[in-house]
Amino acid sequence: MSAVLVESHGALMAAHSPGVSTAVVMTMGALHEGHAVLVREARAAVGAGGCVIVTDFVNPMQFGAGEDFERYPRSLESDVSISGAAGADLVYAPTVGEVYGEGLISASITVDPGPLGEILEGAARPGHFRGMLTVVAKLLHLTAPDLALFGEKDYQQLILITEMVCQLNFPTKVVPVPTVREPDGLAMSSRNRYLSAKERSLAAVVPRALEETIRVSKDEGADAGVRAGLELLSASPGLEVDYLVVTDPALGAARPGAGRALVAVRVGVTRLLDNMACTVAGP
Amino acid sequence: MSAVLVESHGALMAAHSPGVSTAVVMTMGALHEGHAVLVREARAAVGAGGCVIVTDFVNPMQFGAGEDFERYPRSLESDVSISGAAGADLVYAPTVGEVYGEGLISASITVDPGPLGEILEGAARPGHFRGMLTVVAKLLHLTAPDLALFGEKDYQQLILITEMVCQLNFPTKVVPVPTVREPDGLAMSSRNRYLSAKERSLAAVVPRALEETIRVSKDEGADAGVRAGLELLSASPGLEVDYLVVTDPALGAARPGAGRALVAVRVGVTRLLDNMACTVAGP
Repeated sequence: MSAVLVESHGALMAAHSPGVSTAVVMTMGALHEGHAVLVREARAAVGAGGCVIVTDFVNPMQFGAGEDFERYPRSLESDVSISGAAGADLVYAPTVGEVYGEGLISASITVDPGPLGEILEGAARPGHFRGMLTVVAKLLHLTAPDLALFGEKDYQQLILITEMVCQLNFPTKVVPVPTVREPDGLAMSSRNRYLSAKERSLAAVVPRALEETIRVSKDEGADAGVRAGLELLSASPGLEVDYLVVTDPALGAARPGAGRALVAVRVGVTRLLDNMACTVAGP
Repeated sequence: MSAVLVESHGALMAAHSPGVSTAVVMTMGALHEGHAVLVREARAAVGAGGCVIVTDFVNPMQFGAGEDFERYPRSLESDVSISGAAGADLVYAPTVGEVYGEGLISASITVDPGPLGEILEGAARPGHFRGMLTVVAKLLHLTAPDLALFGEKDYQQLILITEMVCQLNFPTKVVPVPTVREPDGLAMSSRNRYLSAKERSLAAVVPRALEETIRVSKDEGADAGVRAGLELLSASPGLEVDYLVVTDPALGAARPGAGRALVAVRVGVTRLLDNMACTVAGP
């Protein structure tokens, strides 16, 4: 199967029959097996008669000053081929000008993520979630999907998008898709390709630290779980921990019952994120 | 003709055939002839086969502390009858709970109006335009119209909505509709019914001050125009001027050519707004 590349909203509308059940997978390109799983889930959700759109757009607004916007990997030809093989009908790769208007990158009217956009990744990357939610709102309007699938890998992003779609009454259902992992457990990410061979082998401790946090949280509570995970990470020189936390599933304070363990570490210049569901013991 | 009242999104969807060209007129109820003109324009725009929806929702989020949310006039029965007579098919009057979720009035994810939301009315009413844009985004998602008609009466609101729809790529066209006036020139507004007979007769100076501003701006420039308008207003005891300004049509600094004259005054406890197109003389 092959996907059709469309590079303007007009071409997207022309290629897309109205009334057909539509699912969208939003990406910043650099597609890997994690994205392919999202596309396959999208195809399964809308069926053979539905339409699966992959958006391929590196959003300048969600990169801060000094972040890796210029360096972010681009591979449109390979993205179209991976999307098609996974069952997408269309790859929508608009220009920055089409999404933001004539050269306007700092939009004046934006989606404000509120307090949930200021913790964890939002604390590390000021303005990131405002840029992310704003471009997701734009792309939801441009693609008008029934379903939008997002990976759990970027968990805070998933929660914020779910909240935005609910709170602003978008006519779209957000579908979370579990994280896809390498054989050694590392979460798939476009940023993994920045890792040197040595860094790549170091990185495998990240999911193991989450598993340790989960194991201990279940019996001894969130604080003990976090301590155990941090201990494991601190034994790996070359890793710098940004945060390791246990929260409730909506990123509020941890409570006995269902929770989420989230971690961000830097390996060399590359920032790696991961998270897993957990259960928190009562006091 | 009569309009059908729907009080939930489910009922709205059931009453509304997909694929039919749809125009929406958003109101906070208390309908008057100004709204009827919007509804007639909406009907003309979509034709007999189209669908005209009037939303009737007093949005708590756009009222500040101490503002007149509780006092804001409600008249649903009369609104349905005025809407129907003007050619509406549906009046969508959702509950606060349906629009904001279970009792949640302070939404955490909002539309940020940016700098344009902080001047003029935004300076007088902090948070007002954030609340307004957020509920307009919600209602655009809930009603999914091809066209949305807004009066020029609330000019800053019109400009902000036009910008939001453009910048966030909403699939809706914003259609501005000229202000409807009473025989003595006063702009129609739901708030006019708060005026005592004496205040009502005082209020007629407001459009005359704008006309004076326009007349003088055309020959002598914006500053002289503003001075002339203010002079006329200051001759009316019982009026308190909040602002009288001349801007460019997008509310930026006045420049020679097309402009906009805007005024806000208080008459007793009632705040009245008006604005008119103008031409600004070069230096």
